[in-house]
Amino acid sequence: MQLSKLEKKLSYIFKDKTLIQEACRHSSFVNEHPDKLVRDNERLEFLGDAVLNLVIGHLLMKQYPDIPEGDLSRMRANLVNEIQLAKIARFLGIGKYLELGKGEEQTKGREKNSILADAFEAVIAAIYLDTGFNSAFDFIDSQFSKLIPKMSVPALNYDYKSKLQEVIQVNHKVMPGYKIENESGPDHDKTFVVSINFDNIKVTGTGKSKKTAEQDAAKKALESLNII
Amino acid sequence: MQLSKLEKKLSYIFKDKTLIQEACRHSSFVNEHPDKLVRDNERLEFLGDAVLNLVIGHLLMKQYPDIPEGDLSRMRANLVNEIQLAKIARFLGIGKYLELGKGEEQTKGREKNSILADAFEAVIAAIYLDTGFNSAFDFIDSQFSKLIPKMSVPALNYDYKSKLQEVIQVNHKVMPGYKIENESGPDHDKTFVVSINFDNIKVTGTGKSKKTAEQDAAKKALESLNII
Repeated sequence: MQLSKLEKKLSYIFKDKTLIQEACRHSSFVNEHPDKLVRDNERLEFLGDAVLNLVIGHLLMKQYPDIPEGDLSRMRANLVNEIQLAKIARFLGIGKYLELGKGEEQTKGREKNSILADAFEAVIAAIYLDTGFNSAFDFIDSQFSKLIPKMSVPALNYDYKSKLQEVIQVNHKVMPGYKIENESGPDHDKTFVVSINFDNIKVTGTGKSKKTAEQDAAKKALESLNII
Repeated sequence: MQLSKLEKKLSYIFKDKTLIQEACRHSSFVNEHPDKLVRDNERLEFLGDAVLNLVIGHLLMKQYPDIPEGDLSRMRANLVNEIQLAKIARFLGIGKYLELGKGEEQTKGREKNSILADAFEAVIAAIYLDTGFNSAFDFIDSQFSKLIPKMSVPALNYDYKSKLQEVIQVNHKVMPGYKIENESGPDHDKTFVVSINFDNIKVTGTGKSKKTAEQDAAKKALESLNII
């Protein structure tokens, strides 16, 4: 059985092999073979999505013991999305093992992000149902352990602007305006300077894009308000 | 410690009491006491929401081994929502044990659905973090075991109409129209007859509301198409 190769890639041997078979079975295959009485991977995908959200949420909470719920939620959204999940599915070579209908086969279904991401979630549910939550936790942890520290930085940066907005809405009732003060350097290597000016606070931030310069300015504003 | 009474209601004794304390601490309390250096329940609520979604998803899958993922998803949404969670929180008497700020206390925060639902999710996460997934699973199972069979029926009924719509869009390309054929009986006890007429299929459904009559008609249409 070819699926034993997939098990090797997953570093997980199924007690119940029908689970991994179901996880790899796309609805297009079932629609073409109604007589086979087999199930597609959509129910598993539904369950796997929930397992993944819980485990990633828990891993982020452990990694970042002090950041608020809204940031955790944004960071999770950056990790658990179709593109990211398809990338992991490709790394695991899941595409090769999918059972697809002929139409999907012809339109390169094996390489589609949506099909790969769904199959990856279905594999997670298959592990969860096979030997329980802790196995699924370990599997997800091993797939995401390198991504979590790497992906969190932009998510945290992003937060300075929203954090500043929240603070200002509560305390000052005036929204902060970001003003581009300067833009210098050649097109491929620009530097932006952005200022924020409100109440008696005037700060400037710099960055390689308007966005990062605004984030930098927001960070400095929060610092001058003694909030971070 | 009063919280031991809550533990009794939950049928769960915490190894780490700080977890249940945190679960009961609303942000309004922390905002009024920044000096206390304690955490509100929002991070726990974030985690608890994910635990709840997974466990309810799994319980629904077990209870309904044959229904498709879309229906499971709708059924879960009917179970995991603010009103439903607040109802369970009230049954468990969680409101009494909340730490609230003065403002929330005055505006009857203890009775608000949003605060109660969030605290219930936080309690779930507290159990999950205290002794692991299986404890949280058992706790949620015991709280929802009576609701799952009860709430699923309208959700399943609801599905006949959407199922019919899906089928018709794929196979016939014409959307089904529902026509009220008859409405009889006194105001408090009406009966509706609704028909669906497309291609060579004509069926009628009856019910105590337009909606249930439409569902009944959709069900009969699916039966006549040999789909259910």
